[in-house]
Amino acid sequence: MTSLNIGLIGTGYMGKCHALAWNAVAAVFGDVARPRLAVLAEHSQELAETKAQELGFVRATGDWRSLVNDPAVDVVSITTPNAFHPEMAIAALEAGKHVWCEKPMATKLADAERMLAAARASGKVAALGYNYIQNPTIRLMRRLIDEGQIGKVNHVRLEMDEDFMADPEALFYWKSEASSGHGALDDFGVHPLSLVWTLFGGVRRVCGHMAKPYADRPVQGGGRRSVETYDIATVLMELDSGVSGVMALNRSAWGRKGRIALQLFGSKGTIVYDQERMNEVQLYTVDRVKETQGFRTILTGPQHPPYDKFIPAPGHGLGFNDLKIIECRELIRRIGGESAHLIEFEDGIRIERTVDAIARSAYEGRWVEV
Amino acid sequence: MTSLNIGLIGTGYMGKCHALAWNAVAAVFGDVARPRLAVLAEHSQELAETKAQELGFVRATGDWRSLVNDPAVDVVSITTPNAFHPEMAIAALEAGKHVWCEKPMATKLADAERMLAAARASGKVAALGYNYIQNPTIRLMRRLIDEGQIGKVNHVRLEMDEDFMADPEALFYWKSEASSGHGALDDFGVHPLSLVWTLFGGVRRVCGHMAKPYADRPVQGGGRRSVETYDIATVLMELDSGVSGVMALNRSAWGRKGRIALQLFGSKGTIVYDQERMNEVQLYTVDRVKETQGFRTILTGPQHPPYDKFIPAPGHGLGFNDLKIIECRELIRRIGGESAHLIEFEDGIRIERTVDAIARSAYEGRWVEV
Amino acid sequence: MTSLNIGLIGTGYMGKCHALAWNAVAAVFGDVARPRLAVLAEHSQELAETKAQELGFVRATGDWRSLVNDPAVDVVSITTPNAFHPEMAIAALEAGKHVWCEKPMATKLADAERMLAAARASGKVAALGYNYIQNPTIRLMRRLIDEGQIGKVNHVRLEMDEDFMADPEALFYWKSEASSGHGALDDFGVHPLSLVWTLFGGVRRVCGHMAKPYADRPVQGGGRRSVETYDIATVLMELDSGVSGVMALNRSAWGRKGRIALQLFGSKGTIVYDQERMNEVQLYTVDRVKETQGFRTILTGPQHPPYDKFIPAPGHGLGFNDLKIIECRELIRRIGGESAHLIEFEDGIRIERTVDAIARSAYEGRWVEV
Amino acid sequence: MTSLNIGLIGTGYMGKCHALAWNAVAAVFGDVARPRLAVLAEHSQELAETKAQELGFVRATGDWRSLVNDPAVDVVSITTPNAFHPEMAIAALEAGKHVWCEKPMATKLADAERMLAAARASGKVAALGYNYIQNPTIRLMRRLIDEGQIGKVNHVRLEMDEDFMADPEALFYWKSEASSGHGALDDFGVHPLSLVWTLFGGVRRVCGHMAKPYADRPVQGGGRRSVETYDIATVLMELDSGVSGVMALNRSAWGRKGRIALQLFGSKGTIVYDQERMNEVQLYTVDRVKETQGFRTILTGPQHPPYDKFIPAPGHGLGFNDLKIIECRELIRRIGGESAHLIEFEDGIRIERTVDAIARSAYEGRWVEV
Repeated sequence: MTSLNIGLIGTGYMGKCHALAWNAVAAVFGDVARPRLAVLAEHSQELAETKAQELGFVRATGDWRSLVNDPAVDVVSITTPNAFHPEMAIAALEAGKHVWCEKPMATKLADAERMLAAARASGKVAALGYNYIQNPTIRLMRRLIDEGQIGKVNHVRLEMDEDFMADPEALFYWKSEASSGHGALDDFGVHPLSLVWTLFGGVRRVCGHMAKPYADRPVQGGGRRSVETYDIATVLMELDSGVSGVMALNRSAWGRKGRIALQLFGSKGTIVYDQERMNEVQLYTVDRVKETQGFRTILTGPQHPPYDKFIPAPGHGLGFNDLKIIECRELIRRIGGESAHLIEFEDGIRIERTVDAIARSAYEGRWVEV
Repeated sequence: MTSLNIGLIGTGYMGKCHALAWNAVAAVFGDVARPRLAVLAEHSQELAETKAQELGFVRATGDWRSLVNDPAVDVVSITTPNAFHPEMAIAALEAGKHVWCEKPMATKLADAERMLAAARASGKVAALGYNYIQNPTIRLMRRLIDEGQIGKVNHVRLEMDEDFMADPEALFYWKSEASSGHGALDDFGVHPLSLVWTLFGGVRRVCGHMAKPYADRPVQGGGRRSVETYDIATVLMELDSGVSGVMALNRSAWGRKGRIALQLFGSKGTIVYDQERMNEVQLYTVDRVKETQGFRTILTGPQHPPYDKFIPAPGHGLGFNDLKIIECRELIRRIGGESAHLIEFEDGIRIERTVDAIARSAYEGRWVEV
Repeated sequence: MTSLNIGLIGTGYMGKCHALAWNAVAAVFGDVARPRLAVLAEHSQELAETKAQELGFVRATGDWRSLVNDPAVDVVSITTPNAFHPEMAIAALEAGKHVWCEKPMATKLADAERMLAAARASGKVAALGYNYIQNPTIRLMRRLIDEGQIGKVNHVRLEMDEDFMADPEALFYWKSEASSGHGALDDFGVHPLSLVWTLFGGVRRVCGHMAKPYADRPVQGGGRRSVETYDIATVLMELDSGVSGVMALNRSAWGRKGRIALQLFGSKGTIVYDQERMNEVQLYTVDRVKETQGFRTILTGPQHPPYDKFIPAPGHGLGFNDLKIIECRELIRRIGGESAHLIEFEDGIRIERTVDAIARSAYEGRWVEV
Repeated sequence: MTSLNIGLIGTGYMGKCHALAWNAVAAVFGDVARPRLAVLAEHSQELAETKAQELGFVRATGDWRSLVNDPAVDVVSITTPNAFHPEMAIAALEAGKHVWCEKPMATKLADAERMLAAARASGKVAALGYNYIQNPTIRLMRRLIDEGQIGKVNHVRLEMDEDFMADPEALFYWKSEASSGHGALDDFGVHPLSLVWTLFGGVRRVCGHMAKPYADRPVQGGGRRSVETYDIATVLMELDSGVSGVMALNRSAWGRKGRIALQLFGSKGTIVYDQERMNEVQLYTVDRVKETQGFRTILTGPQHPPYDKFIPAPGHGLGFNDLKIIECRELIRRIGGESAHLIEFEDGIRIERTVDAIARSAYEGRWVEV
């Protein structure tokens, strides 16, 4: 396979994560050409140059449009704030580039639909950065479900909680403004929904509720400002398959740091998972012997691919950044024409539509069809 | 204090549990007169006599009406199937007895309302068997909340799960008949709602959903019969205080044996609890020192009354039956005219009304005011 | 079966625990005659009378000798401080009573040997209060081991830790005096050794080490006094079967409240246990399917007798005091001539000899044969 | 800082791990010159070339001596089997290279001492690959201990367990041959001892015991061969500071995959850790408020450097390979003349001497001074 030329826009949280993945993917997997880290864009030339040196990119630019139009670029990693995704992704696709865009697609459903249209028109790969689905634990769960090891799934519980908004005296900032979206629902909800999509497919009907733990927050310089977004969201769901679901989201959840919890109940067993212990899966399956029944804690290891590409010994632990390396490998596979374990715009739009339906449902106080 | 004379109706699961409590309460607490185990009623005289001997009752009867009218009886423990509660409780109250009736009050709200009326008319103590609220962990939680240790609570999650209905090939029995109630909602829901009542008070609005994991079940002798009740229920809630809540119930949850899980989020901290580890509470509170923040696992001990009445050393563990002994002591306290930590008919009716509202909400597919 | 007449000496921690067990055993098990709580002895007549009323004993005495010689007494529960065990147990046995004596037998091995001789001479049942072996979890472990479910056991790790001596500024009291024994070794060591005895049998060779976390402690009224006992003990062991063992004990272990932890490694699996979660056993067994291997957390239930005598539903939890009720039932079984799951003086002496050998080993800094 | 030129010998488990670290260190930390991956050596030119391409090295060689003598190489990563370490490390040091050699130093103490002499003579940096000490959790523990947060430490427990030798019917291979060393003691023991060294310093006296779970193993082609090494080791220890320690090692421990467990008891608190949950530390410290005391589970985050260099959000999880990247940064720091958190030959020899003393102690059945 020939080497891919990479352009990266943004070097914040996920920008660095993409850069680390592009740096590592060839050495970890050993079966792909080493990507060429071609161009890095930041909002100033100066910052771009500093970051290009740190992250190993050959060139730097303060103008992202020059990057997406650069003939030396094959793939564009888009890691800027969500509001910029539509413009950048559409420009890159129109310039004939493959796109790897961080989730969610956009802050408004209409923009996401436009992005999908651009992807279809371009014929290029348009992938989303849903790295949690890359955890070998999730692949294991899907295999267990597909093989019927917990029977027919009939009930699903989803939670996602962090505490970065939990302090009521933290200053008002953009995440409390209505322009940023609904709140926990779109900020967090796409993650558990990406797992639902990967494991079960789509959602049919929803009934949501949203709450503000704090009515207002202090403003820099004095005074307080009303909070416009909802840090808490709860949702009743029916999946396409008819399965009963419930989802709870809270970005003001003191003590929770990166909790994405699943409970999957089936006719023959149960799976329980929490991303805060990302190398473990709890599995209960019905046995003939009742005395020794119990949830088993499965530690991931080389028997759960592609863990084996990272470490030959079991139980030694992958980290968050490793998930992006796996995603990067899947993207390369997809660009090469192979089937890949990846959420592309075609599927991602389903997640965005579900979020939109939940929001409408919450505002209107009723069940809504997705 | 003079000794109370006890009549017990029923000797199944909870009947034995009541008998053990009446046997133990004086020795455990050391500050009450030893109850006199006067009369035991079962559906036949023979069974009643066998059980009276086992459980230490002086007399036995195959006729529960003779028990409730016996002048030698002060308190009647009612532990029969739920459908019998109204008739027995009302008869006992009308006969001037105190009543200790297992939860829920009745299978229909109208019956529960009649029981409440009888209790009011009698002026006697009419207490419900909500033993989970007696766990020292729940008292600890209430104290922590009342003292503001987790700040103002803004979000509550409740779960209750067991797996006694999880096997799809288990024979159809009465719990799958509509006459038994709605399903998990009334079978389980009253327990987490009793904890909500104890910790926070009432529920204002609800939106429920119910699901059947299995459409039908095999019938003894061959063939299959449609299941009429819902083993799964999910509920969005707003508490009277405006707090956002969500509840999930599943009596077909493989691997769960006695899970009653709470997550209580506040402006200064979080409490997490699971009845399957009934001697532990998880508490996170905000500290100035960020490096050592984390959920602490509190093991109950003598510093959590009335644990100290059972064991002088911490971390040694109370059991399920001990909770009923505590409840029994509270009942005696209440009969003696003291204030007690107990759910009486006056409060229990609030729980029954909430369950009824959830059921209506689920059948009608909309939010309902309690 | 005819009713047994019970005499109880002591009403402290374990005295109350015995009283609760004698009160409950008939109601819990339903297959034994209700014991007659005949006489209670305390160090004063007044205290004895108060406690007799609380705990349900018919008569009271300030003179334990009158109790052991009382013709109306069949069994004597001895729950006084360890130093009194020899005199009381020997007197009771010589008076023809069955004895139920709390562990350990004595503070000196020679005294324990005399107690054994008295038991042999009397022909009466002489049982020790090793209640942890009564946990259904321990019976489950023994069954699993006997059935070969973890193959041939080859390595055993034992820990026991509490923190009642952990505060270095707690006042000097008798547990820091040499006359009380060696320290954690005899105070705690007998418990894990009772589990080893129950699961595997005896110990062949030992090499111990003991340490003092605090050189001295404050004395009431001022000044400090040198600590004479060892709050920490560590031991290498070879069991009779040749199995490699290691034991660590610490009664100054901050945060540990009732930890008695086992790790049992075999050729086909592993068992892990911690008494602080006394209703759980961790079991790993080798499976053909590698992807789903893991430790399973078994919650005790009715399938683990005699849990079923307490609660018909699984996962609801036994407590510490329930273990003594089970032990009481075993004692009654044994007195009735049946085989019982119990550590009698004949076996208990093996534990005491092991403790003695470890102490010698630690003082002499070398391996010692038991 | 000018760029370092890297030579890597070996591309197995730890060879790949080194390569990943050299690839990633500049992008993760952003404050070091990007290393130049100059030469890779494997046992054949062909394998070397394949691996050089995968892992991003410029040149390849089938002759490690040419690598260590290559003027274009500044640092040599040695990741070959332990028996090769002395020859390679000494040659590299004599050629004026810095050395980063995987642990342990050698299979014989005399060889390790020669390596130390060569390091001293060279004046170059000679670092060992003890990556577990690089976990931010271990740095947190050291800080907590240094700050006195658990008071004066008085007792330490260490465990290391995996199950790659647990199957008794796995074929005999070199790890069961005496020439490979003693067994678990040197294979595993150096890891917990590296943590002890990092947290507390040296060990003064030891008393060890070693056991063979399986007397023989099947040989390829039929028959069985006696096992010559000890898969289980247990050790009593006194640290230089007088602290009491105990260590247990088992490489036949079914179900354990990467367990390295610490329990550190002090006069004011306790720390508990298990590498299988490498992003968590359990901490108990004494509080004035007894009702809410408990072990807190600390999830690592940006407040635990250098976690922040990998991920800006807490609780998202580092992985095993990240530890080597941290170690790599420390090595670069050290080569640059700064102080670093690293075990060099000067300190590593203390660990090897401790292992040697434990082995002698076990063979001779007595306490030995280190």
